[in-house]
Amino acid sequence: MNIHFTSDETSADGVRQRTFLLGVPGVLWSPAAGPADGPLLLMGHGGGLHKTHPGLVSRAEYYVTSRGWMAAAIDAPGHGERPRSSADQAWVARMMAARDAGEPLAPIVTAFNDSLAVRAVPEWQAALDALQQLPDIGTSRPVGYSGMTLASTIGIPLVAADARIGAAAFGGVFAGEELLAAARSVTVPVEFILSWDDPELDRESGFAVFDAFGSADKTLVAHPGSHREVPWHVVEGSGQFFERVLG
Amino acid sequence: MNIHFTSDETSADGVRQRTFLLGVPGVLWSPAAGPADGPLLLMGHGGGLHKTHPGLVSRAEYYVTSRGWMAAAIDAPGHGERPRSSADQAWVARMMAARDAGEPLAPIVTAFNDSLAVRAVPEWQAALDALQQLPDIGTSRPVGYSGMTLASTIGIPLVAADARIGAAAFGGVFAGEELLAAARSVTVPVEFILSWDDPELDRESGFAVFDAFGSADKTLVAHPGSHREVPWHVVEGSGQFFERVLG
Repeated sequence: MNIHFTSDETSADGVRQRTFLLGVPGVLWSPAAGPADGPLLLMGHGGGLHKTHPGLVSRAEYYVTSRGWMAAAIDAPGHGERPRSSADQAWVARMMAARDAGEPLAPIVTAFNDSLAVRAVPEWQAALDALQQLPDIGTSRPVGYSGMTLASTIGIPLVAADARIGAAAFGGVFAGEELLAAARSVTVPVEFILSWDDPELDRESGFAVFDAFGSADKTLVAHPGSHREVPWHVVEGSGQFFERVLG
Repeated sequence: MNIHFTSDETSADGVRQRTFLLGVPGVLWSPAAGPADGPLLLMGHGGGLHKTHPGLVSRAEYYVTSRGWMAAAIDAPGHGERPRSSADQAWVARMMAARDAGEPLAPIVTAFNDSLAVRAVPEWQAALDALQQLPDIGTSRPVGYSGMTLASTIGIPLVAADARIGAAAFGGVFAGEELLAAARSVTVPVEFILSWDDPELDRESGFAVFDAFGSADKTLVAHPGSHREVPWHVVEGSGQFFERVLG
């Protein structure tokens, strides 16, 4: 499937942002002056967010402006521009009700996100197929994946399944059985971000997922606060990680 | 007390290494071309090691060659060029016996290292006094502290006590009461390195020490393997940490 660009804008700080449609809607960031030789980073968004959530865009623009790399994002099923099915809406309602009632989120979030991941992994693979057909990306450029929470529930089986992705930064997930099984199949260099004081995500889940990765090169990076408070220097650290293993 | 240099050599890769005596023997690394404006890093050595252990020297030389910074080390009491007292020798013998018998090391290591720290903290402070009297160091240059195991048992109370030290990288310690109390008084940016699969150091100790630091800016970095297997990229990460907070 060929990629179809639906918009093309360049920001004042030299980041070219192109949206595309490819079955699913996506966005591609690159230096306005043209991409350098660095990696293409696939950037997942968190649960309830979307491909141009400000936090994701600021990270994508950081990779473009500070390093000359490229970054791409797509909306997960039922997120951003994609309509949410009534089945997915029922999951979300159960999740919200559990949160309001102070009940454990892990069982609902794990099952819902696993279900989204089954659908999202082939979508990411199709997006990567199409992106690699663009002359300024190609198939020899290294590919990384970055994203926490839902983006990790999708990204861990994606990286396990797709040998084109050579490194990944994950974090913020519950240690469900599906996820742990996928993590054991991940062997590329991994950085795992753990939000040390997260009221919704238990540390032990993070420890179990970090333990499960089959990668010889893996690093756990923990910061104070919740997964909504990842310090900017941790983002910069992920940039240094991708530079080291893919640059 | 003025510093007295006992040797002055420059390596092929441009690192000037000067040894000194100041009550305790020490060593100072700086760029042969003269120091840039960056930090002075105080580098502690691990238990049983010394100020010019190869691992410590390679880290010091890395800071000098890659960033133009300065680094200094001194021998801890009973280590390197310093004779070991019979009391300290008895501690070491007990520690070795416990290790051979497969008994818990934490109580002995904690008490012994706490005893060394009480003596070493004023020695480091005197060394910093003298180093800051050197014209090419001075008192306006930022100061950091770096070192794991014994070097952290010494460094944590040192950083808690000495406001001149603006950032520190620690790791590899048992969560003894003295250490936890000192960690609570540390408020400067801290990086804490945790060796995830260490047969001698339990993870929970590391978690407790990381939790105890009073610093708003603190990061835990965990790597596979033991504290004898810290990957080089973790050393580079500490360099980036010091660059961010002191550079």
